Amino acid sequence: MLRNAILYFAIVYAISGCSSAAYTSGSSADLDKKSSEKPNVVVIFTDDMGYGDAGFSGHPTIATPNLDELANEGQKWTSFYAAAPVCTPSRAALMTGRLPVRSGMASSKRRVLFPDSNGGIPQSEVTIAEALKSLGYKTGMVGKWHLGHLPEYLPTNNGFDSWYGIPYSNDMDLNIDLVKQVNGEEWGFDTWHKGEHWENPKPEYWQVPLMVGQNIVERAPDQNLLTKNYTEKAVEFIRNSKDEPFFLYLAHSLPHVPLFASDDFDGESKRGLYGDVIEEIDWSVGQVVKALKEEGVAENTLVVFTSDNGPWMLFDTQGGSPGLLRGEKGDTFEGGMRVPAVFWWPGKIHSGVVMDIGSTLDLLPTVVSLAGGKLDHQTDGYDLSEVIMTGKGSDRDEMFYYRGDKLFAVRSGKYKAHFFTQPAYGEEGPVKQNPPLLFNLDEDPSEKYNIADSHPNVIKEIAKLKNDHERSVEPVENQLEK
Amino acid sequence: MLRNAILYFAIVYAISGCSSAAYTSGSSADLDKKSSEKPNVVVIFTDDMGYGDAGFSGHPTIATPNLDELANEGQKWTSFYAAAPVCTPSRAALMTGRLPVRSGMASSKRRVLFPDSNGGIPQSEVTIAEALKSLGYKTGMVGKWHLGHLPEYLPTNNGFDSWYGIPYSNDMDLNIDLVKQVNGEEWGFDTWHKGEHWENPKPEYWQVPLMVGQNIVERAPDQNLLTKNYTEKAVEFIRNSKDEPFFLYLAHSLPHVPLFASDDFDGESKRGLYGDVIEEIDWSVGQVVKALKEEGVAENTLVVFTSDNGPWMLFDTQGGSPGLLRGEKGDTFEGGMRVPAVFWWPGKIHSGVVMDIGSTLDLLPTVVSLAGGKLDHQTDGYDLSEVIMTGKGSDRDEMFYYRGDKLFAVRSGKYKAHFFTQPAYGEEGPVKQNPPLLFNLDEDPSEKYNIADSHPNVIKEIAKLKNDHERSVEPVENQLEK
Repeated sequence: MLRNAILYFAIVYAISGCSSAAYTSGSSADLDKKSSEKPNVVVIFTDDMGYGDAGFSGHPTIATPNLDELANEGQKWTSFYAAAPVCTPSRAALMTGRLPVRSGMASSKRRVLFPDSNGGIPQSEVTIAEALKSLGYKTGMVGKWHLGHLPEYLPTNNGFDSWYGIPYSNDMDLNIDLVKQVNGEEWGFDTWHKGEHWENPKPEYWQVPLMVGQNIVERAPDQNLLTKNYTEKAVEFIRNSKDEPFFLYLAHSLPHVPLFASDDFDGESKRGLYGDVIEEIDWSVGQVVKALKEEGVAENTLVVFTSDNGPWMLFDTQGGSPGLLRGEKGDTFEGGMRVPAVFWWPGKIHSGVVMDIGSTLDLLPTVVSLAGGKLDHQTDGYDLSEVIMTGKGSDRDEMFYYRGDKLFAVRSGKYKAHFFTQPAYGEEGPVKQNPPLLFNLDEDPSEKYNIADSHPNVIKEIAKLKNDHERSVEPVENQLEK
Repeated sequence: MLRNAILYFAIVYAISGCSSAAYTSGSSADLDKKSSEKPNVVVIFTDDMGYGDAGFSGHPTIATPNLDELANEGQKWTSFYAAAPVCTPSRAALMTGRLPVRSGMASSKRRVLFPDSNGGIPQSEVTIAEALKSLGYKTGMVGKWHLGHLPEYLPTNNGFDSWYGIPYSNDMDLNIDLVKQVNGEEWGFDTWHKGEHWENPKPEYWQVPLMVGQNIVERAPDQNLLTKNYTEKAVEFIRNSKDEPFFLYLAHSLPHVPLFASDDFDGESKRGLYGDVIEEIDWSVGQVVKALKEEGVAENTLVVFTSDNGPWMLFDTQGGSPGLLRGEKGDTFEGGMRVPAVFWWPGKIHSGVVMDIGSTLDLLPTVVSLAGGKLDHQTDGYDLSEVIMTGKGSDRDEMFYYRGDKLFAVRSGKYKAHFFTQPAYGEEGPVKQNPPLLFNLDEDPSEKYNIADSHPNVIKEIAKLKNDHERSVEPVENQLEK
């Protein structure tokens, strides 16, 4: 039951050229031909969307008909994890298939990259874009990066042919003078998450740069149009890439606060502005799928939809919901890291609900495997391609829950042990749990009933797994503290 | 926005005979013919299943493929209410379309009927079975009644042609000697909800009667087979009734504790015994649908699936989950009364997610309307037939939340005001909230953010609605205190 991550030791096949240039018709014979070669991959990543914020995951007042349809036609994963409860390390994990602590992209002092940071994703890391590029893929990114904004760290220096988006979170580069002006005298550090600029956000409060490739094309772009513009660029990429295998990483800046929606969605959701934002993202998913279908490549495209971490509940109704899970963005209870997840691949995927464990860490090994490649370096991911294609059980049986660079909790099979706990935010340091809190996540997904006393052997086994894992982590330069 | 319940004043058309005796083929012409006449109605009612306990409502480890399919093909209602947070009054409401306080079926002293009770549903009430019977329906009930176990109160004296089931909850008629024996000296009233008999339930601990019509056919039936036997009787009723319009009320005794599952399901769900029970009920739903399809009557049958109240969380992992809702069985927060709900009618229903308000109170007026009848007495229900057939908005805009015979909270549109609160169980009396707690259920379905201070006018409007409603309730003999 207690297994270590698979280590991939093999050769990266750098297959050049485009084997499917002739494929444009969309007829099923052609589709079968191409699908046995290299599938396109579209990863749609949301920011701070909670486990419970989609129709398919039980939200009563957020309408996500497009996502619900993908979940119904494809696979709905109910135990799928981001590899960190906050933005930068979570994205580093998706991009590399490796726990962020291994790449120096996790810190307990500065939990994410800020506009004054000098670090970013090291060149030594192999990104999912680089891996697919070496297999002949055209690679495009649209949206939020947050893995370093100095030139060497940008997407186009890390495997992406193109990028349109913002380098970090949409609440950064705060125009403090303006924000103080609208909030009055009393606003300050203690109340940074309260105020008029959150209640009635205006794009000019945040001087975030909009970039194309290496160039800043706008400061303080109209965030009301962010989702719409991202969608347009994503669809454009698909239409321009239909004749070659492509990888599209569409990383929405929202529903991270400040929340913004276009006129078509603003005020339309019962759930309020947060719902407007999710419903616009759902529309965006629909546009992407429509483009895939119109270009005749849907049956040869794996679409993955998931989120970077749990909901930012600090922002009350402007934050999302973890559904029935305990925890939130920033902590290592399930709500902090378990995220909504859908895999879709019409006609190819083994449709159904998948309750096995999966993670964004697994995307790199999975898509490399689907593309016929092999990895020659260590990752923390599992190849989920057989789960996707045949419905067999996931090889992943464990999950490591880091808060910053400290390992707080470990899941092994259905059991999760919390060795440390700490609230999502605030100064209060880690609390050592001795004995660790132990939950049976299958029977008690809300982590309400501590069963440590009656399961000492399970704790012993998980403690061993924790120690073995920690011994495998080598010290590296910290990128977030630079 | 603030409207009163529709009062139906018209004549009950007692249409005799069976207009669809010729219909057996299942061809679409016949189907169209019959569906313009009287649709069959199947109501499947679970006991203590929480809002979050189905796949379609977001549970990660309970597999409900049959329910998910019905939800996907039909209507998933996300704001559907039982009319009380406990068993007897909730069932009285479904059966009569009237708030239980009007029929004497609600009490704050004895919240449900017990084996020593002498009351039950008054003969003056018109049950859904009586209403449909007068419209020419064959009426059958399988499962738990809990509206009185003395002869005059039984289903077959209240509109049902046949009944197979148990008269009250499956945890009643406790064999106290046996239960004391297995639990040891310390077990007693204070710990009634703990013990070996809950951890490892055996049918003999509960001497509940199994009845056919007016006759007890078994005491302490094998509850492991209860869901299976109910299903068999329900399918038998469908097969024997396919040539006439029929109403089937299948009221499962589970997942009320003690939990039991047949060998085919015991130990099969990741969620543990509670999950086994739900998954067997899901299987049962599949069997009912299969029978409807095999008999060629599916396209002329409205199937409604819902639950009698929220989860009994007192029983830890043997109780269910309210999902993202606050509250539980026994209280008047959403988790106590908002329940999972699916309407299915292949080829006829306007498929989709319905976020408008609906209630079990509405089933009687709705099915009478679909059957072409009219009601000549007061109900608290709304005719939802247009919502079902065309997708138009629900006429229901309010919900009254009673705890016993006291009105605790009122919902009007998206706002809900709690005038009183009280924990689900225990001695602690009602706490008057002044000003009332006010929640925006659309934006804050988890009832976390009290907005009373900023919405005094909304509270004023809801207080008026409350007063108007309370004036409409006339004193009647209390049936639960008899």
